[in-house]
Amino acid sequence: MITKKPLNIGMVGYSFMGRAHSNAFKQVGQFFDLPYRPVLKAACARNASAVQAFADQWGYDSVETDWRKLVARPDIDIIDIAAPNDMHHDIAIAAAEAGKMVMCEKPLGRTAKESLAMTEAVERAGVRNMVWYNYRRVPAVTLAKQWVDEGKFGRIFHYRAKFLQDWTMSTDLPQGGTGLWRLDASVAGSGVTGDLLAHCIDTAMWLNGPIAEVTAVTETFIKERKHQLTGEVQPVTIDDASLFLARFANGSLATFEATRYARGHKALYTLELNGQNASVFWDLHDLHRLQLFDHGDAGISRGWRSIHITDGDHPYMKNWWVPGLQIGYEHSFTHQVADFLGSLDSDTPAAPTFREARATDLVTDAVLASAKSRQWEQVMG
Amino acid sequence: MITKKPLNIGMVGYSFMGRAHSNAFKQVGQFFDLPYRPVLKAACARNASAVQAFADQWGYDSVETDWRKLVARPDIDIIDIAAPNDMHHDIAIAAAEAGKMVMCEKPLGRTAKESLAMTEAVERAGVRNMVWYNYRRVPAVTLAKQWVDEGKFGRIFHYRAKFLQDWTMSTDLPQGGTGLWRLDASVAGSGVTGDLLAHCIDTAMWLNGPIAEVTAVTETFIKERKHQLTGEVQPVTIDDASLFLARFANGSLATFEATRYARGHKALYTLELNGQNASVFWDLHDLHRLQLFDHGDAGISRGWRSIHITDGDHPYMKNWWVPGLQIGYEHSFTHQVADFLGSLDSDTPAAPTFREARATDLVTDAVLASAKSRQWEQVMG
Amino acid sequence: MITKKPLNIGMVGYSFMGRAHSNAFKQVGQFFDLPYRPVLKAACARNASAVQAFADQWGYDSVETDWRKLVARPDIDIIDIAAPNDMHHDIAIAAAEAGKMVMCEKPLGRTAKESLAMTEAVERAGVRNMVWYNYRRVPAVTLAKQWVDEGKFGRIFHYRAKFLQDWTMSTDLPQGGTGLWRLDASVAGSGVTGDLLAHCIDTAMWLNGPIAEVTAVTETFIKERKHQLTGEVQPVTIDDASLFLARFANGSLATFEATRYARGHKALYTLELNGQNASVFWDLHDLHRLQLFDHGDAGISRGWRSIHITDGDHPYMKNWWVPGLQIGYEHSFTHQVADFLGSLDSDTPAAPTFREARATDLVTDAVLASAKSRQWEQVMG
Amino acid sequence: MITKKPLNIGMVGYSFMGRAHSNAFKQVGQFFDLPYRPVLKAACARNASAVQAFADQWGYDSVETDWRKLVARPDIDIIDIAAPNDMHHDIAIAAAEAGKMVMCEKPLGRTAKESLAMTEAVERAGVRNMVWYNYRRVPAVTLAKQWVDEGKFGRIFHYRAKFLQDWTMSTDLPQGGTGLWRLDASVAGSGVTGDLLAHCIDTAMWLNGPIAEVTAVTETFIKERKHQLTGEVQPVTIDDASLFLARFANGSLATFEATRYARGHKALYTLELNGQNASVFWDLHDLHRLQLFDHGDAGISRGWRSIHITDGDHPYMKNWWVPGLQIGYEHSFTHQVADFLGSLDSDTPAAPTFREARATDLVTDAVLASAKSRQWEQVMG
Repeated sequence: MITKKPLNIGMVGYSFMGRAHSNAFKQVGQFFDLPYRPVLKAACARNASAVQAFADQWGYDSVETDWRKLVARPDIDIIDIAAPNDMHHDIAIAAAEAGKMVMCEKPLGRTAKESLAMTEAVERAGVRNMVWYNYRRVPAVTLAKQWVDEGKFGRIFHYRAKFLQDWTMSTDLPQGGTGLWRLDASVAGSGVTGDLLAHCIDTAMWLNGPIAEVTAVTETFIKERKHQLTGEVQPVTIDDASLFLARFANGSLATFEATRYARGHKALYTLELNGQNASVFWDLHDLHRLQLFDHGDAGISRGWRSIHITDGDHPYMKNWWVPGLQIGYEHSFTHQVADFLGSLDSDTPAAPTFREARATDLVTDAVLASAKSRQWEQVMG
Repeated sequence: MITKKPLNIGMVGYSFMGRAHSNAFKQVGQFFDLPYRPVLKAACARNASAVQAFADQWGYDSVETDWRKLVARPDIDIIDIAAPNDMHHDIAIAAAEAGKMVMCEKPLGRTAKESLAMTEAVERAGVRNMVWYNYRRVPAVTLAKQWVDEGKFGRIFHYRAKFLQDWTMSTDLPQGGTGLWRLDASVAGSGVTGDLLAHCIDTAMWLNGPIAEVTAVTETFIKERKHQLTGEVQPVTIDDASLFLARFANGSLATFEATRYARGHKALYTLELNGQNASVFWDLHDLHRLQLFDHGDAGISRGWRSIHITDGDHPYMKNWWVPGLQIGYEHSFTHQVADFLGSLDSDTPAAPTFREARATDLVTDAVLASAKSRQWEQVMG
Repeated sequence: MITKKPLNIGMVGYSFMGRAHSNAFKQVGQFFDLPYRPVLKAACARNASAVQAFADQWGYDSVETDWRKLVARPDIDIIDIAAPNDMHHDIAIAAAEAGKMVMCEKPLGRTAKESLAMTEAVERAGVRNMVWYNYRRVPAVTLAKQWVDEGKFGRIFHYRAKFLQDWTMSTDLPQGGTGLWRLDASVAGSGVTGDLLAHCIDTAMWLNGPIAEVTAVTETFIKERKHQLTGEVQPVTIDDASLFLARFANGSLATFEATRYARGHKALYTLELNGQNASVFWDLHDLHRLQLFDHGDAGISRGWRSIHITDGDHPYMKNWWVPGLQIGYEHSFTHQVADFLGSLDSDTPAAPTFREARATDLVTDAVLASAKSRQWEQVMG
Repeated sequence: MITKKPLNIGMVGYSFMGRAHSNAFKQVGQFFDLPYRPVLKAACARNASAVQAFADQWGYDSVETDWRKLVARPDIDIIDIAAPNDMHHDIAIAAAEAGKMVMCEKPLGRTAKESLAMTEAVERAGVRNMVWYNYRRVPAVTLAKQWVDEGKFGRIFHYRAKFLQDWTMSTDLPQGGTGLWRLDASVAGSGVTGDLLAHCIDTAMWLNGPIAEVTAVTETFIKERKHQLTGEVQPVTIDDASLFLARFANGSLATFEATRYARGHKALYTLELNGQNASVFWDLHDLHRLQLFDHGDAGISRGWRSIHITDGDHPYMKNWWVPGLQIGYEHSFTHQVADFLGSLDSDTPAAPTFREARATDLVTDAVLASAKSRQWEQVMG
């Protein structure tokens, strides 16, 4: 047995993403052969009892209630930021300056300005960094990317993506506060634009290259909500829905849409790419499948094929079970950790780095700008 | 313009199948170039006012209330039997003896004994004859047959078919009488065995060759029903469900099932064939699609493809609309008429002839025998 | 038998739409009880031999090669315009002035200006008029409309529609000429905007009310093609793809897209409407199904249900076969004729009238204007 | 924090099932609040280096190469048998006699005779025992069971299940030896009957009650294969395919089928139950969905609904992520551990116990007997 080098994780945050990341760190070593072994060293959050309960549940060795103390600890190798968006900037920069590797939940910053500062910090410090755009590591999506890289599609004409939810449609839902910071623009930066569209944009540019320009519309359907903490009825500051048309640098056209008002859809992230020679479609609600239309098939038998991405030659899948047995949502995080740890001894950092992830914030900035200006906006370089 | 030779149709029956056949005769000439032109000459049924209304609706030139008169008319070229099953035998034999071509709804006879007599009659008379197993002419099914004939599947291991309905589940439904003769075994011969399984068996043997032996079970779930005409509660004589396992002559194994007690299914006829090199699946509820799995595809991109059978190179489809635009149920009858008319000047009669259709009655006889004997039964040759 | 009043049809055009309309006129009387009976009186087209062959195939009594003569014939009751778009305007106005009822293929005009003149002509003449937006009469779509009218959806938040094809992707495809006039903007008016988007817009406004404003982008992917008649390479004048975002008058947001460059899609017209209480989805590739999500279902069993629109209580379906047996594309035209004939003795004309169909041309005008101005454009009233 | 009582696991076996069980033991505590905490104490297998590597990968404290030593260790609380079928009997009985709790992979015995001895041993010893029929704990399947228990379906008429694979179709595949013991009847007991049908039967009886009688057919398609260890060509002893018809004690009829020769299917376990009031369908290839047809829906909007089993009110799901995010295959094992640990302090043992699982072996015995006798066989009580 080769002894694997331990890497001590300092986790900031403990709710949805804190759990998803922790599970990935715990599970990765049993399924992937890696030179490094993540150790759940410290969990950090302002709420002392909550973070202690989280640490107990997940087996973290220790807790902190001040992220500055966590960043200062010499026994921490990696700071993982799973806290609300308004904390990304300060923590990431401090962690980089302390020489830690930094992982950060998406979106990187609330604005591209924030993410530029963060990017410059990690690059200045020379520390490895990565943003959790986990959908790149759903095996079906990874396979689509392989095919793009192989040139399977030929010239790309169209791309379309949407991310549809319906969990905020009730007027009774309060805004702000615990578990609801995504409804508070001062914390989240924006509504669905930064939350859901950001995923769509990251995958889109990974598969289809840079987005050149956009025209957008956003809407806040329910204008006022009670604030969870104050109990006062306040104007809603986030966008409930965000739609845009885009032209990619390669000349292809796209529609993008995200909303939390699409009754019947829980987390329906779909993407489709239409090329000269083939097309591909993927859907988060059946994330273990990839739909392919290959124009190279004999004419009489052409059709969309539904590929059950569970075979050993599909990305990441030889590490799991046997053909036919699907994995789920959480595995995308495990794959991302596997790629991150696997890349540490190489010159090529695992993607997306802060710099790569910042490209998405430039697009969301343009989307929000266009929704205001009611004109096409160029995406800044 | 080449003048097309008229062929005068004498139709017996006027309800579901009478309409389906009449529509095919009327529509075929607009979509298929054929040497013959069907003329709706006479409609025949015992109920004078009903048959007159039918004739008016469909444009039949005349009516008869006694099929013997119809058969005797010198101006009739083809007798088409769309009457209940207990009338097939006598009409078909009389028509053959009168030198008419004969088309007959399925099943050919209530028993293989009846269908043998009918077969011998048409062969003795030397008249063209055909049984309306219309599902062979659904383009998706026809394409599957083409692939079988090309050897695309290699050795066949498995076949499975089912025909699920739910329309007789209410205990209030009466039996017998107008529109309900399918629930009266003395008229229908059997229940779902002759009605639904017969379709499954015909297609199965067309695609996969003869069935050698079967083991079966049948059930009548609701034992008594009021008779529609008498109002009396009587024992139900038909089988509500009929299931069997089969071994084909080629060594493949099969499951067959038909029922009118499968809640949620209106007319779900599905078939699947698994071969060494490929598999195919079809479903009457989406009859314009054919599912194909081709093991010859590259491993990483193998999947079931859903072929939208609407392209010009798909069977029969160049005669209809443009790619993407589906046809429906009734078109299978139109195709059968087209094939029948198109074959008249050739030596190869359109399939299935009476003799070919009789093979199905031999299987349903074996199924019913096995359900009684509780043993495997060989299918008679 | 009640004698049905004959109505003599004068058909202009004989290709795709000429066939679809003729089939509807021929088939409607067998399936729908109507006070009027269409008679295929005369077919008209410039190409004498082609129109004669068409008339023979379909049973038209006579032919004309000059539409002005057709319009002048006293024995014609209805002029049906199935000719290329550049002929709609003149024929419709002349027909109206001659006192004929007028049916016209969509889009009504090449521009809203043309369609205004046509609308004023039929209204001035007081003749019944209708535009063939046939997808309204697909039973699944009609059912969605019923539910809208019943208020089943509550407040509408989102609408999305796309119409994807791939038949013009080959650079070898010529433009203009017989069967290819849809690629010539001088004849067609526009590319996919008037051809495909027009369908999407008509249904959308029928279901969700007026569109207030749009922002759009169009593209011509292949810039030059050989002209079929001259053999010369010429600039392509039509839009190959057309996408827009819209805000409806009711405040809901929408994405619309049409293209002929979406590899793998033949005629994938999909629409989805998301309301507070329910959502609905429909897809032309499986036109006999309607997907419904009903938030009123018990939480634990909520899901998208796929309704097989073949039951007797579904719109139009009691006139066809039995539950489970699907109809196809062509039936939407038959339904439209049935509604037209059925409305003649009432005060409510069958929809969409010229005036109603003109609303779509106002939207397509705004789409094309926005694609040029690169700004949001208000839809004119 | 409540300290959770540790339970020391002694795992026999280290391949597919050894991994699946170990993952469940490791992961359960992070997602379920339980009074007990499984500790990976010892892994056991004959191959010393293989089991050491497994222990290192999974964090087992120690290894054994003789299961008798493992059973004798006083620090082991639970013996988990993930070894080939021919070892179940001896290990389980010895473990029970040593007073250990026993978990055993399915099928419990190679025959019902073996499983009877095992059942009597655990009952005599009074130790908790469970068989890993993991598919009961797929949330969609568990939900179906809830509905059965609530009487949602009314009288049941039909059940159908199949488990289709294609991994043994190549004639080059050897039999016996490492990783291939499922192809050796002396080790496995039977082929697909005990491997795949056993799963179908366990779920079927859980949902629909006892099976009364069966008629079956089995087949070995490839008669001879090279043995992996000896290199000699030997007759294949297992069944490649196994099909049967069944009558349940409640009078419903069923088809069952399992095969490894269904090209295109990796692990397609499907089940469907048709009741008077509703029907339900589930499919392992999309295990996170459940299809429901509810006849109680309004007639016009009845359809099969696809329920995405990811909401907090679906079985087990509140413990995982958020609505819309699916789990995978492995989670069924985690749920089973959660139920086992959660039941230890109650009087109701987690199902299926050895006695409950033995019922499946009685059915597979009857299936194999019927395949030989070619007659219906009663299932022994």
